[in-house]
Amino acid sequence: MKKLWEKAYEIDKQVEVFTIGKDRELDLQLAPYDVLGSIAHAKMLQEVGLLEKDEFTSLKEGLSTIYQEIEEGDFEIKEGVEDVHSQVELLLTERLGDVGKKLHTGRSRNDQVLLDLKMYFREEIWKIAQKVQDLFDVLLAQSENYKDVLMPGYTHMQVAMPSSFGLWFGAYAESLVDDLVVLQGAYEISNRNPLGSAAGYGSSFPLDREKTAKLLGFEDLSWNVVYAQMGRGKTEYVIANAIATLSATLSRLAMDTCMYAGQNFGFFSFPNELTTGSSIMPHKKNPDPMELVRGRCNQLMALPTQVMAVISGLPSGYHRDFQQIKEVIMPAFEMLSGCLEMTCLMLSNIKINEELLENPIYNYLFTVEEVNKRVVEGVPFRDAYKEVGNAVEEGMFKADHEVNHTHQGSIGNLCNDRIAQKEDEVMRRFKHDKVEETLQKLL
Amino acid sequence: MKKLWEKAYEIDKQVEVFTIGKDRELDLQLAPYDVLGSIAHAKMLQEVGLLEKDEFTSLKEGLSTIYQEIEEGDFEIKEGVEDVHSQVELLLTERLGDVGKKLHTGRSRNDQVLLDLKMYFREEIWKIAQKVQDLFDVLLAQSENYKDVLMPGYTHMQVAMPSSFGLWFGAYAESLVDDLVVLQGAYEISNRNPLGSAAGYGSSFPLDREKTAKLLGFEDLSWNVVYAQMGRGKTEYVIANAIATLSATLSRLAMDTCMYAGQNFGFFSFPNELTTGSSIMPHKKNPDPMELVRGRCNQLMALPTQVMAVISGLPSGYHRDFQQIKEVIMPAFEMLSGCLEMTCLMLSNIKINEELLENPIYNYLFTVEEVNKRVVEGVPFRDAYKEVGNAVEEGMFKADHEVNHTHQGSIGNLCNDRIAQKEDEVMRRFKHDKVEETLQKLL
Amino acid sequence: MKKLWEKAYEIDKQVEVFTIGKDRELDLQLAPYDVLGSIAHAKMLQEVGLLEKDEFTSLKEGLSTIYQEIEEGDFEIKEGVEDVHSQVELLLTERLGDVGKKLHTGRSRNDQVLLDLKMYFREEIWKIAQKVQDLFDVLLAQSENYKDVLMPGYTHMQVAMPSSFGLWFGAYAESLVDDLVVLQGAYEISNRNPLGSAAGYGSSFPLDREKTAKLLGFEDLSWNVVYAQMGRGKTEYVIANAIATLSATLSRLAMDTCMYAGQNFGFFSFPNELTTGSSIMPHKKNPDPMELVRGRCNQLMALPTQVMAVISGLPSGYHRDFQQIKEVIMPAFEMLSGCLEMTCLMLSNIKINEELLENPIYNYLFTVEEVNKRVVEGVPFRDAYKEVGNAVEEGMFKADHEVNHTHQGSIGNLCNDRIAQKEDEVMRRFKHDKVEETLQKLL
Amino acid sequence: MKKLWEKAYEIDKQVEVFTIGKDRELDLQLAPYDVLGSIAHAKMLQEVGLLEKDEFTSLKEGLSTIYQEIEEGDFEIKEGVEDVHSQVELLLTERLGDVGKKLHTGRSRNDQVLLDLKMYFREEIWKIAQKVQDLFDVLLAQSENYKDVLMPGYTHMQVAMPSSFGLWFGAYAESLVDDLVVLQGAYEISNRNPLGSAAGYGSSFPLDREKTAKLLGFEDLSWNVVYAQMGRGKTEYVIANAIATLSATLSRLAMDTCMYAGQNFGFFSFPNELTTGSSIMPHKKNPDPMELVRGRCNQLMALPTQVMAVISGLPSGYHRDFQQIKEVIMPAFEMLSGCLEMTCLMLSNIKINEELLENPIYNYLFTVEEVNKRVVEGVPFRDAYKEVGNAVEEGMFKADHEVNHTHQGSIGNLCNDRIAQKEDEVMRRFKHDKVEETLQKLL
Repeated sequence: MKKLWEKAYEIDKQVEVFTIGKDRELDLQLAPYDVLGSIAHAKMLQEVGLLEKDEFTSLKEGLSTIYQEIEEGDFEIKEGVEDVHSQVELLLTERLGDVGKKLHTGRSRNDQVLLDLKMYFREEIWKIAQKVQDLFDVLLAQSENYKDVLMPGYTHMQVAMPSSFGLWFGAYAESLVDDLVVLQGAYEISNRNPLGSAAGYGSSFPLDREKTAKLLGFEDLSWNVVYAQMGRGKTEYVIANAIATLSATLSRLAMDTCMYAGQNFGFFSFPNELTTGSSIMPHKKNPDPMELVRGRCNQLMALPTQVMAVISGLPSGYHRDFQQIKEVIMPAFEMLSGCLEMTCLMLSNIKINEELLENPIYNYLFTVEEVNKRVVEGVPFRDAYKEVGNAVEEGMFKADHEVNHTHQGSIGNLCNDRIAQKEDEVMRRFKHDKVEETLQKLL
Repeated sequence: MKKLWEKAYEIDKQVEVFTIGKDRELDLQLAPYDVLGSIAHAKMLQEVGLLEKDEFTSLKEGLSTIYQEIEEGDFEIKEGVEDVHSQVELLLTERLGDVGKKLHTGRSRNDQVLLDLKMYFREEIWKIAQKVQDLFDVLLAQSENYKDVLMPGYTHMQVAMPSSFGLWFGAYAESLVDDLVVLQGAYEISNRNPLGSAAGYGSSFPLDREKTAKLLGFEDLSWNVVYAQMGRGKTEYVIANAIATLSATLSRLAMDTCMYAGQNFGFFSFPNELTTGSSIMPHKKNPDPMELVRGRCNQLMALPTQVMAVISGLPSGYHRDFQQIKEVIMPAFEMLSGCLEMTCLMLSNIKINEELLENPIYNYLFTVEEVNKRVVEGVPFRDAYKEVGNAVEEGMFKADHEVNHTHQGSIGNLCNDRIAQKEDEVMRRFKHDKVEETLQKLL
Repeated sequence: MKKLWEKAYEIDKQVEVFTIGKDRELDLQLAPYDVLGSIAHAKMLQEVGLLEKDEFTSLKEGLSTIYQEIEEGDFEIKEGVEDVHSQVELLLTERLGDVGKKLHTGRSRNDQVLLDLKMYFREEIWKIAQKVQDLFDVLLAQSENYKDVLMPGYTHMQVAMPSSFGLWFGAYAESLVDDLVVLQGAYEISNRNPLGSAAGYGSSFPLDREKTAKLLGFEDLSWNVVYAQMGRGKTEYVIANAIATLSATLSRLAMDTCMYAGQNFGFFSFPNELTTGSSIMPHKKNPDPMELVRGRCNQLMALPTQVMAVISGLPSGYHRDFQQIKEVIMPAFEMLSGCLEMTCLMLSNIKINEELLENPIYNYLFTVEEVNKRVVEGVPFRDAYKEVGNAVEEGMFKADHEVNHTHQGSIGNLCNDRIAQKEDEVMRRFKHDKVEETLQKLL
Repeated sequence: MKKLWEKAYEIDKQVEVFTIGKDRELDLQLAPYDVLGSIAHAKMLQEVGLLEKDEFTSLKEGLSTIYQEIEEGDFEIKEGVEDVHSQVELLLTERLGDVGKKLHTGRSRNDQVLLDLKMYFREEIWKIAQKVQDLFDVLLAQSENYKDVLMPGYTHMQVAMPSSFGLWFGAYAESLVDDLVVLQGAYEISNRNPLGSAAGYGSSFPLDREKTAKLLGFEDLSWNVVYAQMGRGKTEYVIANAIATLSATLSRLAMDTCMYAGQNFGFFSFPNELTTGSSIMPHKKNPDPMELVRGRCNQLMALPTQVMAVISGLPSGYHRDFQQIKEVIMPAFEMLSGCLEMTCLMLSNIKINEELLENPIYNYLFTVEEVNKRVVEGVPFRDAYKEVGNAVEEGMFKADHEVNHTHQGSIGNLCNDRIAQKEDEVMRRFKHDKVEETLQKLL
């Protein structure tokens, strides 16, 4: 196999297969970032005098061509080439000769993959954030659509007090806003330039790390080179936590949905084409998509443990173990993204049962209303509570289905506009547009 | 037992013991927040006309007295009283009569405990942030103190390239800054008023939730009442993730410290009085405090799983399971706090071995320097790499111990001022001073 | 503080508090095993000639007295004494003079605490196994009691096919049997003598480790002394996994119970005195005990992660971190035990609703019966499936509530006797009686 | 897409892609078990009179042909076919006509996939056990090879007492024995027939579940049909725990190996062809294979959390979420298997440094020996301890490198034969030969 560190001896085949793992497959996703990072690195090398102007021009052209090949799906990591970094350098050297070798000046594969990952994470987090916004929009729209449809509210899984579909949809929308706060924190931590940290100890070349940070649209540097290297694993851990936080919201939403779609609740149903059947029960129309959203999001809640297990005992400095984390974190974005899209599809097509509260099991929903009415009439709360409790105990309680909630965030006053405003404010913090612009200028 | 929801029948003793768990013990920590929250609630009730002015005055006085008793250690949750909410209401009713009962108007214990927890978390997170700053200061000071002392840098646990104590200390300082970003996200999510959400479905009273938010120094509300209730478990999850992120930094620092203190490295040692001995080996001076920092922080990295395990399958609405999370999350602050303090103590007293690199095993640290020197002299990188590799292979490599790193974040240019500036910026985001001021005004 | 390894200098107070943690509190539970282990060690020392006969007699008497004091609650780890081992040695030396010091010959606190823990675990696992049997008995009895009462069976949380309370109770009973298989594996791994491994590298004394194994009722030794030390952490991990496995069963049982007790299912209810109320909803009777069983068992499912987080990065040899695991694992037995007892209490007092299937939402339960009837009449399965499916689609399906299941493990043939037989077989594998007998002989 | 439950409407494409996930890919591994299970089911159906003799003969022939096609790599799950069960039934129906449809009598895909998984797990666990035995053999052989080569033993990562490579290798061998105990427990739980439980509630057909259990070589049944269905998720959880337990051993072994291969320890090295290099440091020969063993095994230690996260909140009955667990658990066998093989390769080729203890940092290893020598000469232990401690403190301690350990499991008496005997005993418990024989008879 072609390796950047090739020595006089051959690596054992079994070792080669074992160590490469899924690198070549996963690295394909890093290819565009690898090339962009190389252009920025080359430009900086030229500016500090480590590359001649024409060397840079030649390298930039070569790299831009490769970028285009990647975009067009014409790039592959060839059998016998270890990783994306080697493949790009190999192509360059084949096409441009010795100048291709100069690109690695002041750089190690350690900071190169770190850079690729940071750029990849920054982009993937942003894509997730946008899909979160899509779901947020669906939820808020449905909250408005069904704001007047009451549903039972539960505590302890027992019928408790009146709620509404407006509240239910809106609650998950607001939950997404907090998830975005966490996600944006992960974005901030990803948005730091590690390039120039080499193998984690910097180098004696007079690199300009602020320059490459600027060229690549980074908000800041990982200044300390030892810390830059520590970013490996740590960045993934913070992202895993953010993914898990968001997954917790989706998982609960899916749990509600699966439960409420069952015949014992019957709060809503889905069109036939969004459900699946049973091989032995001809009447079944199962909400499998939401069960899988639940299952997959629950699985994503284990993501932090997966990352933690790998990093928790390692001393500082690079370890090959970090490579393993790619296999764990990279597919998580796609899985999460699929769950967000599916939830959008399902909730957009949900059919709400608007006559729920006719069922007599929901009578007790209104005991608190009755207690409160008496309080307003002057009975001390604890006494009113006892009176109504006695009526219930004696089977004398009668429900008056009217609900008159007016305070902020209640059935009659959802404050969805305030929630939307908050969401908008958090989305603005990402400032991702600037990143895209900056990267475009590199090519 | 005295309960707010007392009915005609007695609760089974075994059930009583089982359900209360550690509530009475843990609730003591919530007591001051419970009272502050009650004052704000009462004030709002008066402003919207649900309490007479003199009723409010009386309640406020009663509550202020209890607050003082808490401050002075004179408050206890009496045997036979279920929780802190019941104890406060009981005291009020004993001392003030019927008006004590009126305080519960428009409130449930569900939003009451949510409020207490949010206020408690906000405060505890802030305390942690301050201790992080203390450690940050120690690390940065030590980085400056030892910025000229070289140490070996490792990759794959193998001697790799020259590093320095300046880099090593500084790296952990910068790591703490990113941890603070995550912590501040958790603070933001804690800093939202849930009061008025009652049992998770609001109430028919014309409450003014923005008013209590303002009185209690909250930056924002959990607007949607169903979402406010969802904050239970979710807030803890986000905090657990933030604690785990910070713990990962401390754990790695502790791992380094324990390893480097061993005789095979001998990078530094600790004063006798900070180490412990062995019952059979008379020569041992073990760095137990840092082993326990490592062990405890590793354990804290399991905190998110503990919270996740409890919340992951629950549909929306309150469940008693949430009570269980208090047992998990509340002691974590103290544990983390202790680890931060201990790390400060140990690192402040560390004795660095300044003559490390004399050991011939560290010769190879300088191969990259040699490669780079040849590159600067015009040899293409890959060729220089091969030449030096061959010298090593043939045992001909000689180390020149000079290090000449100048770029940002490298041995010769630590950029600690930039790191300090970043830390300062993140600490400012908390805006906790305002909270303290606001709460003082309530009493 | 009094320490076995006391040196000329004083340990820093903050370090002392930090390192001791909850040791003194937790060690109290280890005291009886510490003393029993010391008696066996002393006896072996005498037999190999390292103690005189009268020295042994004196030590045994002294230790037996301490054992009695422990049994009677008269033993404490004094303020200023580091751990149980130090306290016992201190008492002995105070009471017996120099011979007390000889007891530590050929032993380290490392193998001493390992031994105490192994004996403690063996006992605690056995106690759990017995409580599992109690719950098993309740479940099987209820399965028989309600074997003729039908309930709906669900798939995808949708009404699916007829089930019965006989099946439901019996299923959890059989689940416990498999949990016992796993628990017995953990017991086997705990049941190995580590004594004589000293600090993990053995000693030059001519110890007879098979002798102490026999005296302490161990089934086998951890032979290799380095492995004996590795048993620390590993044993806890295996036990944590076994606890988590059992907790998964209880958690699911609790989830079912909480859900089915809600008004939307109404499968059963609990007597008033086993439920709790709400501070604002006077009609509520919540199944809090089962919610807490669920919450606590879910939390126990995080136990393996807690142990794993501590041990996963540690190289071989003793580390102080292991001490931390005691705080995690020791309280787990009590928590699990409480959940088992509470589940027994609740399920013994459950009131089953025997008229469930009257509700028309359960009609579809019987579609498969109808399909099967047609199959028996000669219609190919896939055709019968389509016919009935069409009838459902057209609203023409009519349910015949008769169930005629006869095969092993089905509604009409629960095979509870086979399940009981299997449980009995697994319980016999523990052979704990022998252990108790052997330990009695030591005193 | 071709589905067994096809209805009049088309399933939405996005839903189809989302719900199928990796099923078709993973199901290929289940194909042989699916066919074997179908043969056993058919045979039983014939014996209880639900199939005619010639129908069975025809089905068996058809299934045997498919089995052969699978063995020869000629089987695929066609685009547009949902899963392996559908593909097999489709082939049968195409080839045999209506009799193919009859095979599903008394069976659901739920118990079919359960059966496939149980058989798959049983086989995969056994394969792992065999690879564990291979590694065990390597470790024990190396223990014997190097039984006289001393190495330092560490506690608290500090030089502590003399150990040996004999002890070090042997310790991991013995650790594997305990891992096999746990693995065999998982095997036992997998080795129970779920067939006949249909969708988790049995059926009205007079099935003979003991018959299929016998035909398929199961040691026992999951008797209760509701429990049989609960086996989904639970079996995987128990297996995940067993895999994690074994991974903990490998991870620690790998950590030791990586650390000890570093220049600061230099305990051993590996041949060039088993190490990898650096792209910038020409002197590096990194033990990447063992780092990846560590990283992958650490990741496998998160497996239980992944399974737990999916199952922890689900009530009883089938949920689509269980499908998700296949993606988690099935690749784990291959990952673990690769780690076992790689560890065998590395440790078989390890080159031990036999002159380690010359290094003066190892002098203190011998303090305990000195203390013990004085004890044997009559000095009470605690006094001898103080004398030697003082000598160390004053720099007067001199090491005598002789080690004279004789007790069981110590340097001079490894007891590897006892460990081997124990391993053999545990391997015998599997009784897997019988399974293979039985399955052969089916075809």
